[in-house]
Amino acid sequence: MTETTGYSGGGPVLIKNPHLDSMEEDILYHLDLGTRTHNLPAMFGDIKFVCVGGSPNRMKAFAQFMHKELGLEGSGEDVADICAGTDRYAMYRTGPVLSISHGMGIPSISIMLHELIKLLHHAKCRDVTIIRIGTSGGLGIKAGSVVITDTAVDASFQPRFEQVVLGDVVVRSTDLDRELAEELLACSKEVPDFPTLIGHTMCTYDFYEGQGRLDGALCSFSSEKKLEYLKRAHKAGVRNIEMESTAFAAMCRLCGLRAAVVCVALLDRLEGDQIRAPREVLREYQQRPQRLIAAFIRRRLGLRPLPATEGTTDRHGL
Amino acid sequence: MTETTGYSGGGPVLIKNPHLDSMEEDILYHLDLGTRTHNLPAMFGDIKFVCVGGSPNRMKAFAQFMHKELGLEGSGEDVADICAGTDRYAMYRTGPVLSISHGMGIPSISIMLHELIKLLHHAKCRDVTIIRIGTSGGLGIKAGSVVITDTAVDASFQPRFEQVVLGDVVVRSTDLDRELAEELLACSKEVPDFPTLIGHTMCTYDFYEGQGRLDGALCSFSSEKKLEYLKRAHKAGVRNIEMESTAFAAMCRLCGLRAAVVCVALLDRLEGDQIRAPREVLREYQQRPQRLIAAFIRRRLGLRPLPATEGTTDRHGL
Repeated sequence: MTETTGYSGGGPVLIKNPHLDSMEEDILYHLDLGTRTHNLPAMFGDIKFVCVGGSPNRMKAFAQFMHKELGLEGSGEDVADICAGTDRYAMYRTGPVLSISHGMGIPSISIMLHELIKLLHHAKCRDVTIIRIGTSGGLGIKAGSVVITDTAVDASFQPRFEQVVLGDVVVRSTDLDRELAEELLACSKEVPDFPTLIGHTMCTYDFYEGQGRLDGALCSFSSEKKLEYLKRAHKAGVRNIEMESTAFAAMCRLCGLRAAVVCVALLDRLEGDQIRAPREVLREYQQRPQRLIAAFIRRRLGLRPLPATEGTTDRHGL
Repeated sequence: MTETTGYSGGGPVLIKNPHLDSMEEDILYHLDLGTRTHNLPAMFGDIKFVCVGGSPNRMKAFAQFMHKELGLEGSGEDVADICAGTDRYAMYRTGPVLSISHGMGIPSISIMLHELIKLLHHAKCRDVTIIRIGTSGGLGIKAGSVVITDTAVDASFQPRFEQVVLGDVVVRSTDLDRELAEELLACSKEVPDFPTLIGHTMCTYDFYEGQGRLDGALCSFSSEKKLEYLKRAHKAGVRNIEMESTAFAAMCRLCGLRAAVVCVALLDRLEGDQIRAPREVLREYQQRPQRLIAAFIRRRLGLRPLPATEGTTDRHGL
């Protein structure tokens, strides 16, 4: 069974669940929100941008950064966690921007997305753009490069997400919005001090064996087999590897959300497995997708862009 | 390819990776620990019990609870997060007990386990028992019941974990330690105010469609199909459903760790999908596996057990 329909771009958030309308109350358990306990349209109805990432601290820092970028009043330092009643996820809002953490891996982001998409639906949000800003391992690109995903692929380099439903496998498309990816690449020229490129992103269920690392508790393959696999991935167009993009792309597409994935590479996996850069270097790397997305949101909102200079962008990172 | 060897029970932690010995340094990135930056044998060499669970707050509360149960000096309230430099996981120690969060889902627990198992190996720990204390959806059992897993099964009710290695699927056994499960069931008689039982635990990659919930953002099946699936699971011996047990069982077995999974059921999935109990009821439910494990650790350490009374335990929760 293959599902490929769904993506509309702009417009309302599409819930693909006929049971939902007959529920008297919807408890978004892992967000500690609900339709009876919270006025979701009042809280979220004007949200236009949703940014998601693995780490709660990073998503808080992004909300604080956006507060400044949008020129909002106050310092923004005291931004409150909307999901404070649970430690499963953290959520912050600043202006029309919602910033949410999703933890690591497909199951973790999937729980968050189910509840976030229902939240946007209950809040009657329209024309929402959703962007994952994350970290990743690069493939044949310099550490610190930012990859905008054109297509999310699985560990066999196929653009598909296999979802198990009642014990059966359903195959879903992982296409992302091409126009949005191009728009983000254009924005990257406003943030010229790091390379940005468009490429495929491989999504795995495991950080060690699943990504061909030699440094896990378990490893049954040679250095040669590892490099052969990573080079095959590179030849197939993969420029970075992470752990959420296929599920993110598939769910957003089915629910009519314009979606993008923008990840910084913390290292080049063709050169090693361990993340050795000092914490302060890694911290600056992690700010790069945030700076790019801030430029994009400013542009969309018609705020004066930062002075344009020549960027170090290219199409394929070769 | 099927891997079934590995489990030894007691003894040292087995690293199944020939590359590790040749590494000059091992950075446990997601724990913010390393062999050069930390004296792991001094910090962890005497650890005998490792308890893991999804929520960082819950694992902190467990460390504080164990501090009291072990009769250690001080209040234990100020227990420090050993992984404070990262927000990916939280880790606390109290006496010979390590308490660590693992987030939600197989990929998230898998990253933590790779790095934890290497940590225990580098620290030269011996005779370590590891227990996952979690939350789950029950199947034909009362909300608040505690399930000790005999076998972790996948969404097709099979006792296997499929690990993708360099793009190929490797099938691993998910057997858990039967003696340990029986020992835990015996201990449950010391904590008589909630039902405890032994049964199969089903592990899925998704909380909504993957567990047959009708209340996600996506749902393509009927209430009848859902119940048919859940009843088939129950008939196959499944008594609860969660999202980490197969990977946990497979990795611990391969690395020679005596392992158990002890989860409380927050609801009976045959009766509904939404977690509706008040937060204070859920909080008390979540303490139940902790109380059982505290009784077990006290018994193992030869501390005076709590007064024994007749427990409401049974073998199959029928």
